[in-house]
Amino acid sequence: MDNYKEFIGFLAAVLTTAAFLPQVYKTWKTKDASSLSLPMLVIFFIGIVCWLIYGVLIDSPSMIFANSITLISSFLLLYFKLTYKKP
Amino acid sequence: MDNYKEFIGFLAAVLTTAAFLPQVYKTWKTKDASSLSLPMLVIFFIGIVCWLIYGVLIDSPSMIFANSITLISSFLLLYFKLTYKKP
Repeated sequence: MDNYKEFIGFLAAVLTTAAFLPQVYKTWKTKDASSLSLPMLVIFFIGIVCWLIYGVLIDSPSMIFANSITLISSFLLLYFKLTYKKP
Repeated sequence: MDNYKEFIGFLAAVLTTAAFLPQVYKTWKTKDASSLSLPMLVIFFIGIVCWLIYGVLIDSPSMIFANSITLISSFLLLYFKLTYKKP
C-alpha cells in the first residue's frame, strides 16, 4: 500500500525534477533568460529549501530526492538570470 | 510537534506557490514566453498533477494546498506559451 503511494510520489518527483532540465538547458544554450521572472526564481529557490526541510521532517523519500535536485536546477536558473541579465 | 512540521510545509507551499505568480503576471503583461521551455511546462504540469495525488494519498494539507494553486499557475503558463508562441 505504501509502495503504491511512494510510486506516485516518486513519479511526481521525477517529473517536476526532470521538468527543469530542459529549462536549464534552453537558458544555458540560448543565454536568454529575459522572459524568466527574477522574483519567481528567488522565491522559488527559498521555497524549495523549505520543501526539502519539510521532506526531511515528514520523512518522505520522494520529497527529499526531488527537492535536492530541483534546488540545484533552480540555483542554476537564478545564476543564469543574474549572469545573462541585460544591462 | 506536528504543527511545527506543518508550519515549515505551509511556508514552503506558500513560497513555491507564490513564486509562479510574478512569472504568470510577467508573461501575461509582456506577452513574451520566448525563453520559457515548452517541454518544461508540459512535464511540470503533469508532475504537479502527480504531486497533488500524492498529497491526497499521504494526507498532507500543505501539499494539497500548494499543488492545487500551482496547477492553475502552470496551466496558465502553458496556455500563454502556446498562445504567444512566435510563428
